[in-house]
Amino acid sequence: MNPLSCPLPHPATDRILLAHGGGGRLTHQLIENVFLPAFSNPALNARHDGALLARSGERLAMTTDTYVVKPLIFPGGNIGDLAVNGTVNDLAMCGAKAIALSAGFVLEEGLAMATLIHVVSAMRDAARAAGVPIVTGDTKVVDKGKGDGIFINTTGVGVVLAPDPIGPEHIRSGDVVLLSGDLGSHGIAILSVRDGLEFEGDVRSDTACLWPAVEALFTAGIEVHCLRDLTRGGLSSALNEIAMIAGHRITVDEVLIPVKEVVRGACELLGLDPLYVANEGRFAIFVPAKDADQALAILRAEPVSAGAVQVGMVHEHTSGIVTLRSRIGGNRVLDMLSGEQLPRIC
Amino acid sequence: MNPLSCPLPHPATDRILLAHGGGGRLTHQLIENVFLPAFSNPALNARHDGALLARSGERLAMTTDTYVVKPLIFPGGNIGDLAVNGTVNDLAMCGAKAIALSAGFVLEEGLAMATLIHVVSAMRDAARAAGVPIVTGDTKVVDKGKGDGIFINTTGVGVVLAPDPIGPEHIRSGDVVLLSGDLGSHGIAILSVRDGLEFEGDVRSDTACLWPAVEALFTAGIEVHCLRDLTRGGLSSALNEIAMIAGHRITVDEVLIPVKEVVRGACELLGLDPLYVANEGRFAIFVPAKDADQALAILRAEPVSAGAVQVGMVHEHTSGIVTLRSRIGGNRVLDMLSGEQLPRIC
Repeated sequence: MNPLSCPLPHPATDRILLAHGGGGRLTHQLIENVFLPAFSNPALNARHDGALLARSGERLAMTTDTYVVKPLIFPGGNIGDLAVNGTVNDLAMCGAKAIALSAGFVLEEGLAMATLIHVVSAMRDAARAAGVPIVTGDTKVVDKGKGDGIFINTTGVGVVLAPDPIGPEHIRSGDVVLLSGDLGSHGIAILSVRDGLEFEGDVRSDTACLWPAVEALFTAGIEVHCLRDLTRGGLSSALNEIAMIAGHRITVDEVLIPVKEVVRGACELLGLDPLYVANEGRFAIFVPAKDADQALAILRAEPVSAGAVQVGMVHEHTSGIVTLRSRIGGNRVLDMLSGEQLPRIC
Repeated sequence: MNPLSCPLPHPATDRILLAHGGGGRLTHQLIENVFLPAFSNPALNARHDGALLARSGERLAMTTDTYVVKPLIFPGGNIGDLAVNGTVNDLAMCGAKAIALSAGFVLEEGLAMATLIHVVSAMRDAARAAGVPIVTGDTKVVDKGKGDGIFINTTGVGVVLAPDPIGPEHIRSGDVVLLSGDLGSHGIAILSVRDGLEFEGDVRSDTACLWPAVEALFTAGIEVHCLRDLTRGGLSSALNEIAMIAGHRITVDEVLIPVKEVVRGACELLGLDPLYVANEGRFAIFVPAKDADQALAILRAEPVSAGAVQVGMVHEHTSGIVTLRSRIGGNRVLDMLSGEQLPRIC
């Protein structure tokens, strides 16, 4: 077995850091420098949330995610519904309706059986709500102190129902950027029960299945160019990834981006920027300007995207960057998260 | 979210034990009492190595496995090739050729980048050898002391090429049981580098891709009734699972089961039974007696199953049990592994 023919060109580090899992720059480097050179193939190289598999008669999508959220149970959800919704959502972002999920558990020796049953029950309910069966599974147990309660991998297969190709490379100058609702609740809900922090007001995770909103856009014939859920790294990292792949400039307007008062207050207290905080039930939608109003009306009719708003635009540009018009009127580059803002958020 | 409507009928334990991941009786109970009641659906309820998804035009199979083997690198392989071969093999056991794999990594903070690159290179080589692309992936990082180097989930989608349905429910009285080669090398190779043990002679893991052997059987028109790889819990647990589902009695002849001298010696030293030790490149094949000789010749022509032999038979019976005719001539029930013989073997 030979080592990779493409070694790290600029080894930022010779050890794995928490930030390698944060969804920002170091995650990006790990993917570009280690995984892509090793596994290179057209489906993977597309760098989308999931892979497209062209099979006779239909287009299938496949996506995978491992969930290591800490704590296992938090306001508004737990690792179980997160694991189902997150993977169903990644398929939805490929324009695909989930048709089958697998579930792989890594359990830590000594885990309370009641906790496992609580989590498994939540997976059952989330899978029913999303209308997708969990068709195959696997359980491993690791010695006490070599895991952390429960890690869950869910991998999903879906049927692509989007009439046209969807992805970062399909956004166009003049497209509008829609956001399905307010930002930051998932990340702050996790923090609110971690390390003994407590905030005024009730913040619950936004974890939810996004497929009904996506399906409604397709059904209405909206010309959808790109969809992206705003998980690790939040809105900023998602937009940066899209801008980089597309080679276009994306501008967003801070004043248009909804953030609940309690979430904004918690972010200020903790020195966090809500544009970088993870969401588990929010996504960005790129559509041509002609479809913007109709798309917003359709999104607002679905409970999961009732708070949909237009937040930005796509502009022709030679290199992909994201700029933010701030609350006080200035423009600044909205960079990709470099380090790790909130480890183990999903 | 309601708790499971079917609680543990006989809660053997209120905590997860290592043995819940051992592939034996406790794993079986966890599946029957927790996962199946929650996720019940026809594909999952079939209790096969993978799930069959009937799609227009073709039959797809899906399977998942998380690999937590310790140590990460061992004689004959590492967690990377194990993760690719294991999942490709689970598809092969469904009669399916792998067409796409996903890879989900849980990395422990502080892992040496060189170790990750070594493992990823092995995955690349194993995937190339199996002719299957890794189409999508995910990386999470957990804090130091909350993981153990690397855990890898691989989930596979395959196209079923078996002309007839394959599975434990399809074995018939009069079928012969073939074994693709000698037993126990994987488990003993892992043990040989764990806890400072050393054995005389060189034992290397048997990790390998089984698909070429399976495909050769189909190509030759062999009537394959059931295939099962002999991983966690070894030959005994695999045969017990099959016997239970089929409701037939399976008899095997100890003297016909090949075990290398060095493996047998190590097992004796450690008080292990090679029939319960995990293999990662061995499988059992159920075919009608009429096809036995031809099937053996075909298997022996493939490097991965060059040591194929006939080891047993299927008999009509009202309840599924496995009996062994021992080396000294007596008959005894070969039970399913109850506890955990070798934790974290795959």
